[in-house]
Amino acid sequence: MFYHHAGWYSNTKVLHCMSLSNKLMHTLVMDDIERYDLAIIGSGPAGYTAAEKTAKEGYKVVLFEKADNVGGVCLNEGCIPTKTLLYSAKILDQARQASKYGVLISGEIKPDVKRMVSREKKVVRKLVLGIKQRLENAGVIIIKGEAYIKSNHKIVCNDSLYYVENMFICTGSESIIPPIVGLEDVPYWTHKDPLECTDIPDSIVILGGGVIGMEFASYFNSMGSKVTVIEMMNELLPMFDAALVMQLREIYAKRGVEFLLSTKVTAVAMEGEKIAISTNPVQEATIVVDKLLVCTGRKRITAGFGLENLKLDKDDKGNILQNKRMQTSSHHIYLCGDANGKSMLAHTAIREAEVAVHTLLGGTDEINYQCIPSVLYTNPELAGVGYTEQELKKKGIPYILKELPMAYSGRFVAENEGMNGTCRILINPNDQRIWGVHLLGNPASEIIIQAANAIRMKRKASEWKRTVFPHPTVGEIIKECL
Amino acid sequence: MFYHHAGWYSNTKVLHCMSLSNKLMHTLVMDDIERYDLAIIGSGPAGYTAAEKTAKEGYKVVLFEKADNVGGVCLNEGCIPTKTLLYSAKILDQARQASKYGVLISGEIKPDVKRMVSREKKVVRKLVLGIKQRLENAGVIIIKGEAYIKSNHKIVCNDSLYYVENMFICTGSESIIPPIVGLEDVPYWTHKDPLECTDIPDSIVILGGGVIGMEFASYFNSMGSKVTVIEMMNELLPMFDAALVMQLREIYAKRGVEFLLSTKVTAVAMEGEKIAISTNPVQEATIVVDKLLVCTGRKRITAGFGLENLKLDKDDKGNILQNKRMQTSSHHIYLCGDANGKSMLAHTAIREAEVAVHTLLGGTDEINYQCIPSVLYTNPELAGVGYTEQELKKKGIPYILKELPMAYSGRFVAENEGMNGTCRILINPNDQRIWGVHLLGNPASEIIIQAANAIRMKRKASEWKRTVFPHPTVGEIIKECL
Repeated sequence: MFYHHAGWYSNTKVLHCMSLSNKLMHTLVMDDIERYDLAIIGSGPAGYTAAEKTAKEGYKVVLFEKADNVGGVCLNEGCIPTKTLLYSAKILDQARQASKYGVLISGEIKPDVKRMVSREKKVVRKLVLGIKQRLENAGVIIIKGEAYIKSNHKIVCNDSLYYVENMFICTGSESIIPPIVGLEDVPYWTHKDPLECTDIPDSIVILGGGVIGMEFASYFNSMGSKVTVIEMMNELLPMFDAALVMQLREIYAKRGVEFLLSTKVTAVAMEGEKIAISTNPVQEATIVVDKLLVCTGRKRITAGFGLENLKLDKDDKGNILQNKRMQTSSHHIYLCGDANGKSMLAHTAIREAEVAVHTLLGGTDEINYQCIPSVLYTNPELAGVGYTEQELKKKGIPYILKELPMAYSGRFVAENEGMNGTCRILINPNDQRIWGVHLLGNPASEIIIQAANAIRMKRKASEWKRTVFPHPTVGEIIKECL
Repeated sequence: MFYHHAGWYSNTKVLHCMSLSNKLMHTLVMDDIERYDLAIIGSGPAGYTAAEKTAKEGYKVVLFEKADNVGGVCLNEGCIPTKTLLYSAKILDQARQASKYGVLISGEIKPDVKRMVSREKKVVRKLVLGIKQRLENAGVIIIKGEAYIKSNHKIVCNDSLYYVENMFICTGSESIIPPIVGLEDVPYWTHKDPLECTDIPDSIVILGGGVIGMEFASYFNSMGSKVTVIEMMNELLPMFDAALVMQLREIYAKRGVEFLLSTKVTAVAMEGEKIAISTNPVQEATIVVDKLLVCTGRKRITAGFGLENLKLDKDDKGNILQNKRMQTSSHHIYLCGDANGKSMLAHTAIREAEVAVHTLLGGTDEINYQCIPSVLYTNPELAGVGYTEQELKKKGIPYILKELPMAYSGRFVAENEGMNGTCRILINPNDQRIWGVHLLGNPASEIIIQAANAIRMKRKASEWKRTVFPHPTVGEIIKECL
């Protein structure tokens, strides 16, 4: 049974406005079972987006979160704390470079790491409270506890039974720990540990040259650690434009980061207080460092909460089948965010949740994974959307490449003394539409949005070029390049 | 006679590729008259854009510039040098605020103004050389000298006569100096002087609270001057969203800038080494300061170069009539940039030049002044595009206002300790299209581009909202707000 555009109870909206107290809650319990229009498991970007939107539409929504705070990995131990630390590192780097811009600093410039970390935690707290407030204002019932799916409409949490009309599975992802000999016997770090670290290691190996690995490489490089990035593949960051990745790698290599590409870690072991990391075959050597950070990817969380009891259809690789409206084979059950393993990005999760909500509300919406930007918050930032050149080549799709140095933008020159950057735009030669846009240079993260819009709108290069871009901006580079 | 898609000479393209030397030039002279497909007077953003584009299409183009360098006011004494200085001031402010982000600076932080100014000049030089190179590579003939229009197809410069098929008038604008008693007898500054100033004044009055005035108010405030802004109107920056202007004014008032609104300067006079500025009626007082910077607007340059000899049709206010393709009543004569007095922004000039070029080349294009963003490079930046709320109210156009604090963006919180900001979006209630978008908060200048695109594309709020905005970005505030 489906409920469109209306709450389970006719008076739900009124009750929500009253900001439900626990006492009031009991008036809604029927036959000792809590009844909800929608249960959401996991309060990360997918979960909190869906919860707020549906509750605002009058749905009676329960949101289960096993962690202490709402917000998921992104808010508590991912995007937000890392970007906060990276901004502190940027301020540190800018102070060190200030004389180039005519700003004299006579004394010592150094990080107060305790303060950086305490600020990072303050920012997270503020945003977590903000999300919690928004959810409560919308009337979402937040239950702290591990939800367990009993059947298609039943969830148990903290010994209470919840009868739910619809279910959003937004359980997120967790770090992949590779099966390396000795790894379990050393105190290796995952992405969470640097966020707590107030004693910067002299040396650190980062295992995995993906987004998380490269952002931490940038952070520890700014903080003065000797950083070594070990990557099994022959290049970092396969999801980004390969030419720009190479430029970025060269920038960081000049700053002292060592990159061991095409390199496998064969074993790790303690060596006194330090960690010895053995590699092969390209660099047959043992590196001894203070810390080892494992960032070898993330895997969806699909076990431990009764998902198997739903008996959802799967493909032959074991992936749960979904339509473009985020519905599983049981149409009242939706799977959003990292948990579906499709894109593993917070903004994808948010969009998937929106699509699921629109579907639930009876609207029309579909997910399109082609317009999803990727951003790397190094300094300079790297961002891209649409096809990369290497993807087009691999697929044999014809393209026109337009490429310009960022220095074609006057503002980039004004704000980036001695820094390089590049804009690369890939265009379909048949219809002049945009295959992809890729940028290396600050603030690529903010500029790439217009490219995501352009691809989404199927704009032609010549038409997009006719937009008035404010002068001087770095974003003008796109107009120049088109 | 019109020449579409082809040069005046069939071999023009080839000659251009050879990068015409003066010697070669003489082979093109016929009957002692230089013949060109297109003459452009003024090498600012309109002029250099048009020159490069047409020359690349095979047109034989002569570009007249009376100043020493190409680039016009924007590049030599406007957008670029001010943004370079403002970025130095931002680096200075960030160093002073660094401890908030966990960066400890033990010694003194101070501006080395000589170095700031010399860097500003270096940036300008680099960009001027870049533009010059691009023009030369395209085959544009640059003539340094004052051009004088003799008739519809004849221009004289440096005693040479040029016969030209088409003409682009891109003569720009100059400062308006108000008729204030005593002004001519004091060494007042215009926008050019702060760019040369290496001895920061203790106190400065800025006359005029427009874009130029406010950017210099921000600069001198960062540099430690006591700044007073005197504005005749009852608020600063009438072209921007009034609510955001008030917020910005309050931010700068807290930093010590004094704003005298609804205030007229009645007289100025020397008082020893200083300048005494008498005001009335709201603040009946005399202010004595080291420097007086006059930024009371700009006026188009339409005299002194023979424009009157063209006998172009004018409206009853004396404005030269133009169609949306930038053509005057003589269709081979185009008027672009500040010289037409329409918008007085570098990016408008660039777009007008594009429209004129497309028209000249026989294509279809039209100028649309509704999608032109305005940006103020204070810290925080202020940017807007489309209608402001005050305009909609004045015109009696219905609208929905959506407004959010910038702190709804996690990245804004991460990067703006103790800083406020606001996003305001005005929506047409009838068709959900965007009337206007207005942002206070960094980097508003780069984010506003997507709003300009959305208005240009006539996107509906609900549709725009479905774009995947990368997370975390400040630009996400638009998705949140829509």
